[in-house]
Amino acid sequence: MIKHISVTTTQRIECINILDQLQRLVEEIKLKDGILLVYVPHTTCAITINEGCDPTVFQDILFKLTDVFPVDDTYVHPEGNSDAHLKAALMGNQRFMFVHDGQIVKGTWESIFLLEFDGPRTRRIFVHYIRTREKE
Amino acid sequence: MIKHISVTTTQRIECINILDQLQRLVEEIKLKDGILLVYVPHTTCAITINEGCDPTVFQDILFKLTDVFPVDDTYVHPEGNSDAHLKAALMGNQRFMFVHDGQIVKGTWESIFLLEFDGPRTRRIFVHYIRTREKE
Amino acid sequence: MIKHISVTTTQRIECINILDQLQRLVEEIKLKDGILLVYVPHTTCAITINEGCDPTVFQDILFKLTDVFPVDDTYVHPEGNSDAHLKAALMGNQRFMFVHDGQIVKGTWESIFLLEFDGPRTRRIFVHYIRTREKE
Repeated sequence: MIKHISVTTTQRIECINILDQLQRLVEEIKLKDGILLVYVPHTTCAITINEGCDPTVFQDILFKLTDVFPVDDTYVHPEGNSDAHLKAALMGNQRFMFVHDGQIVKGTWESIFLLEFDGPRTRRIFVHYIRTREKE
Repeated sequence: MIKHISVTTTQRIECINILDQLQRLVEEIKLKDGILLVYVPHTTCAITINEGCDPTVFQDILFKLTDVFPVDDTYVHPEGNSDAHLKAALMGNQRFMFVHDGQIVKGTWESIFLLEFDGPRTRRIFVHYIRTREKE
Repeated sequence: MIKHISVTTTQRIECINILDQLQRLVEEIKLKDGILLVYVPHTTCAITINEGCDPTVFQDILFKLTDVFPVDDTYVHPEGNSDAHLKAALMGNQRFMFVHDGQIVKGTWESIFLLEFDGPRTRRIFVHYIRTREKE
């Protein structure tokens, strides 16, 4: 069954670490071994996996994205958030992660994030999963 | 079994909504609950999920992508479509979607698109799927 | 069970074709029909699928990425590799591929690559898989 988590952002552009919420969900659904699929259904948000230890990494990522794809440009879309749609499409609205022995598998520095490009808002994130066999 | 759908584009750069074709496929294969995996095997195309209601959103996305990554540059590849390969790689050649109760799950404004960056062409899109249990 | 392959890079920015290693893994685990999930747990690397026949395509892709997102910029992160984190996040750290009749399914020109943006290093790539039924 599809599950979901919620995230509330406080700025227009923001990066929220959702790893702990996902790990709690893995425990709640008792997913021991399998694939976790994470999907944001909002068109000005993205899901990404990158460095989760030093917040200056995402500070730099969001600065440079906005430098190359600024808010104001010769856009046609009347809502004034075309830059947010483009940034969201470039980063992607979904990621999968592996689960082993009840734990989300990740690299040393990795974490998984909601990227908000047109906040502040409260956003839902859909999570689905596939159970795999441990021994094969 | 791997299924496929076909899309014909009429311009060099174009955005084609494939949601209805995928929903018909879901009904044809009687996928009630599961994961749909959508994959374009052409290296100058992408699959993306974003705003499907107002076409000015993709007009702006494609304008700005071409502004930042123009067709003509100091490229080495002799076919003259390196910009298309780069745009395709940045947007990604694949997306998954969830299916619940026979319907593709999506946000209010969301749709799924083939992005053509080196058309016009007829393109195949591969679709695979995983059935999950409804009650868990 | 989660498998892995290893790749050693020799330059800061480099593109390594990993298709043959993945195909050997498919044979080793006797995956006849299913989904292969490929995930790099390093935050300055990406996994991408694009043209694998003419190496000038990735030469152009990596040139233009570095032109738009240069190494030196007004970055805050003290390690000096913020450009690598951004490039990795834009390209994505994961891809799925379909397997049919024991073979990885791909387009004529396609291949799958590790993109290294902060090498040279030895990198691990995690691979998971889902077996599907051939006849359905």
